[in-house]
Amino acid sequence: MNFAIILSILSWVVLLQGALLILPCIVGFCYGETTDALVYLAIAALCILIGGLGRLKKTKNTTFYAKEGFLAVSFSWIVMSLIGALPFVFTGDIPNFTNALFEIISGFTTTGSSILTNVEALSHANLFWRSFSHWIGGMGVLVFILAIFPMSGGSTMNLMKAESPGPVVGKLVPKMQQTAFLLYAIYFAMTVIETILLLFGGMPLFDSLCHAFGTAGTGGFGIKNDSIAGYSTYLQVVITVFMFLFGVNFTFYYYILIRRAKDAFHLEEVRWYFYIFLIAVLTIAISLTCQGGSFGYNLQQSAFQVASVMTTTGYATSDFDLWPQICRTILVCLMFIGACAGSTGGGIKVSRILLYFKQIKKELKQQIHPRQISIVKMDGKAMEHSNIRSCNVYIMAYALIFVTSLLIISLDGFSFTTNFTAVSATLNNIGPGLEMVGPTGNFSEFSVLSKYVLMFNMLAGRLEVIPMLILFLPGTWRKV
Amino acid sequence: MNFAIILSILSWVVLLQGALLILPCIVGFCYGETTDALVYLAIAALCILIGGLGRLKKTKNTTFYAKEGFLAVSFSWIVMSLIGALPFVFTGDIPNFTNALFEIISGFTTTGSSILTNVEALSHANLFWRSFSHWIGGMGVLVFILAIFPMSGGSTMNLMKAESPGPVVGKLVPKMQQTAFLLYAIYFAMTVIETILLLFGGMPLFDSLCHAFGTAGTGGFGIKNDSIAGYSTYLQVVITVFMFLFGVNFTFYYYILIRRAKDAFHLEEVRWYFYIFLIAVLTIAISLTCQGGSFGYNLQQSAFQVASVMTTTGYATSDFDLWPQICRTILVCLMFIGACAGSTGGGIKVSRILLYFKQIKKELKQQIHPRQISIVKMDGKAMEHSNIRSCNVYIMAYALIFVTSLLIISLDGFSFTTNFTAVSATLNNIGPGLEMVGPTGNFSEFSVLSKYVLMFNMLAGRLEVIPMLILFLPGTWRKV
Repeated sequence: MNFAIILSILSWVVLLQGALLILPCIVGFCYGETTDALVYLAIAALCILIGGLGRLKKTKNTTFYAKEGFLAVSFSWIVMSLIGALPFVFTGDIPNFTNALFEIISGFTTTGSSILTNVEALSHANLFWRSFSHWIGGMGVLVFILAIFPMSGGSTMNLMKAESPGPVVGKLVPKMQQTAFLLYAIYFAMTVIETILLLFGGMPLFDSLCHAFGTAGTGGFGIKNDSIAGYSTYLQVVITVFMFLFGVNFTFYYYILIRRAKDAFHLEEVRWYFYIFLIAVLTIAISLTCQGGSFGYNLQQSAFQVASVMTTTGYATSDFDLWPQICRTILVCLMFIGACAGSTGGGIKVSRILLYFKQIKKELKQQIHPRQISIVKMDGKAMEHSNIRSCNVYIMAYALIFVTSLLIISLDGFSFTTNFTAVSATLNNIGPGLEMVGPTGNFSEFSVLSKYVLMFNMLAGRLEVIPMLILFLPGTWRKV
Repeated sequence: MNFAIILSILSWVVLLQGALLILPCIVGFCYGETTDALVYLAIAALCILIGGLGRLKKTKNTTFYAKEGFLAVSFSWIVMSLIGALPFVFTGDIPNFTNALFEIISGFTTTGSSILTNVEALSHANLFWRSFSHWIGGMGVLVFILAIFPMSGGSTMNLMKAESPGPVVGKLVPKMQQTAFLLYAIYFAMTVIETILLLFGGMPLFDSLCHAFGTAGTGGFGIKNDSIAGYSTYLQVVITVFMFLFGVNFTFYYYILIRRAKDAFHLEEVRWYFYIFLIAVLTIAISLTCQGGSFGYNLQQSAFQVASVMTTTGYATSDFDLWPQICRTILVCLMFIGACAGSTGGGIKVSRILLYFKQIKKELKQQIHPRQISIVKMDGKAMEHSNIRSCNVYIMAYALIFVTSLLIISLDGFSFTTNFTAVSATLNNIGPGLEMVGPTGNFSEFSVLSKYVLMFNMLAGRLEVIPMLILFLPGTWRKV
């Protein structure tokens, strides 16, 4: 094991976080929240100092393998969260460390589950940091580091592989650094466009930025107690559209950029993502209209909620816990499907679901025609066996974590629906679930043990299970 | 497609069912229920006539492949159920055909979900037929036919493969007919022993037979409204032990019979089945004792309920819907795990769960040591790739049916917990779920559409998904 290279990467992460913490510090000064701003400044300074010192030490051996890649990613996210929780504690807005850690992990993993009962009581600096954490976590810190700093030697592919969502890591261009840079460029540009459109609808700058961050990272932390419900229909529609767009595989935008629109629209995953979205929106809208209200209004509400849940953002405009059972069940199913691979969204991902379907079809065909040879294809290309295997193991590991978490949090004694949706809301990085953790509820009532289990779920969900599970494998720590 | 051979097998099934219907007819005459007895006699006679006529026609081409095997099994179970529902309708005990069909499918598939609110109102003939259907379905009709009638030509392996539960079909002895005969011999002997032990505890003969049938098939239809709760502790313990025993892979008993006890106790699946059972029983007993009551009593109640749910029998002695949440969650998890492959129990099966675990472990190892080659072993032997693939596709198809059913029955508007546990109770062939379909509830409130969906689930669960899904594949019906 090459611990030196892992420490070197962690130094980058701490240094970067120091730089990022300057932003909420500035926000604090702008709003006259001097104490809060100073807290952010102090932590930022400390991070830059520690990170900088760490960077001074040269690492001789810069090669790292898959194992180091996974560990570097897991530790980066854990360290980032431990540091990120500090401002909440020291500004006194979330004095309990467990709660503060829960909140920031929920932020970085773009989950959006909260332990706060009154969001509006937070200072602007803290609200900004909370929303900004979504933006940081959405595309990933290590991808950012890869994009900006040249990492000489070592197969950086392993880092990207461990941090990026989806069954197959899409290298847009042959060079890793360029791919990372391109991803961040698209991400940044889309965030700016959304902010402008929100400003155009009369939303204040602070609110626009926070909501754009929440949408871009498909996170879901709002800055109002009623999430997005209080904003105008125009603003809700803008957010709906951008939630949907940030759930699309970024390869789609890359193809559009290089003017290969035909290839873009031929991406199977994106097409199915759209079909599922459409069917869900229409079914829920019709079902709501049967209960009452105009179809137009219900369609808008349905589109917002489906986009929010399917992309695992988690914003709310209405209490869908009160909707008819079929709508609630559809939303629970969408929680699991999630967004596209290679987007900022969570969940199992449309491409994996597609791959499962294709395997069922193939197996049924093979059962009735045992001598026929059929292969699983995606976007017209045959899938590699190792990718199919990883994809299958992913769902097993996912189920294992799901069941184990469900059992542990059941000790708290809340209802089955609460527990089931709390686990799926965190493991799929959505935010709200149903009943106690529904759109109007929060996660504060859970015991400390349950909160740590749910934090683990959020990290496992964001990093796609394997990097977090590897921490528990004895073989990881054994000297070869 | 060789339709002639399928028809020929269906004739056997109808003929056999005619013979089996004589038994409830005799019960009816014994208890002076002359009308009911005559109904059974008439249907039996008709079956024998139709089946016999069908058998007269000689089929020239007796070879059949996997496709014919699957279709023969699916159709056999559907035809069997359609005929089996008739006595309930014509005796007037369950006048509604959908309800009658639901009840008998629940019987044959050894599910034990009921639409009846008052079981005790049924005639003895009907109660007997209801319980006897568990015994028939437990080991399978086609296995029975294979055991008794020599099927010349054709690979009968395909029939057995489609009807027997588990990822790998265990041929105990090289000859199919002998294997089938051995299975039924063990099954019959164990049922007789249980009946004697129940009689010994003072249970009347009729009750003993019905409960022995329900236990042997891991079905769960009781003959009292309070299921098993009204019987003595001795009787409850006997039933607990036999529920557990019928959930064991029958290969275990075969090894014991041929005095290879060492091999028997080395079966990984049986060992894990025992460990899971033990851990679940102890956890629930401790959890119940924290609430109150003596540990001994709670241990007995816990063992009964765990055996009942894990083997997917579904008998109840107490309303576990009122137990602490952790106990309920454990029971829901056990519903999915199910019993051993090659037993009469349902669920995903312990061996598949084991295989999933082993795949996760292998993949994690491979991720950190990409150059190491590791294989998945079961009972010390390397698993074939095609078996692993089938096992993985099984869980995907299972999830697909689960989600689709959940969405359809959500249209009825009952709670998420009701719908979720109704689907898992039927797809895993258990019987009761939680809330509306809990141990004290029943399935009568569901709409006709939902009932047919749940019937499909029961059949899919019993026949392990693939034979039922193949019916929906267009390729099955296309002429090659």
